Amino acid sequence: MSNMYDLAYSLEKGLRESEEFLTLKKCYDEVNANPEAQALFASFRDLQLSLQQKQMTGEEVSPEEMEKAQKMFQDVQANAIISNLMNTEQRMSMIINDINRIITKPLEELYGPMVEQEEE
Amino acid sequence: MSNMYDLAYSLEKGLRESEEFLTLKKCYDEVNANPEAQALFASFRDLQLSLQQKQMTGEEVSPEEMEKAQKMFQDVQANAIISNLMNTEQRMSMIINDINRIITKPLEELYGPMVEQEEE
Ligand SMILES: [Ca+2]
Ligand SMILES: [Ca+2]
Repeated sequence: MSNMYDLAYSLEKGLRESEEFLTLKKCYDEVNANPEAQALFASFRDLQLSLQQKQMTGEEVSPEEMEKAQKMFQDVQANAIISNLMNTEQRMSMIINDINRIITKPLEELYGPMVEQEEE
Repeated sequence: MSNMYDLAYSLEKGLRESEEFLTLKKCYDEVNANPEAQALFASFRDLQLSLQQKQMTGEEVSPEEMEKAQKMFQDVQANAIISNLMNTEQRMSMIINDINRIITKPLEELYGPMVEQEEE
């Protein structure tokens, strides 16, 4: 097994023990401990997923759906427990993006020149 | 800065120095050193990208395009320099997938239960 796997497991451990992950876990537990927040968050996630799928397949989103989404987004933002979780999720998502960018840098450097040559 | 970033940079270094990455770089250089292989590989990549985009947007792929793709795939497979590169790319792609799965395990564990509850 390559050293890369050992390093990946170290990073996984680092993420699991990070303040950011522990905060995320705490925020997530708080949402799940509150039935109203839990239900609202689940509905919001379902709606987000449905809108994303429509966007990907080019299906039209009706004005009613848009209005429903905006209303639900307002409810979600007004709920302190959920908005805490969503802010924490956003920070974690940025960290994961950073990590992916760092790790795949060697591949990006390798393939960068090919794209440039194709564009000439 | 979090320890996660230090660990990500260690992993990046591990990847860059790995036998798999060095082999990939060598295969890639061999393709780029051969004008015929380089041109065929670039055309194949363009076609793949175009077919993927059509698949994502649900646009129809014509029988002519399918035939062209199959023909080009045969040419690519018959070219030892390119098929070497593609096999090496596939191994690297599996490693990157493994690494991503390992790193995001804590998040998967956190969100797993929510998906189950939604399905109830
Ligand atoms: Ca190139
Ligand atoms: Ca749950």
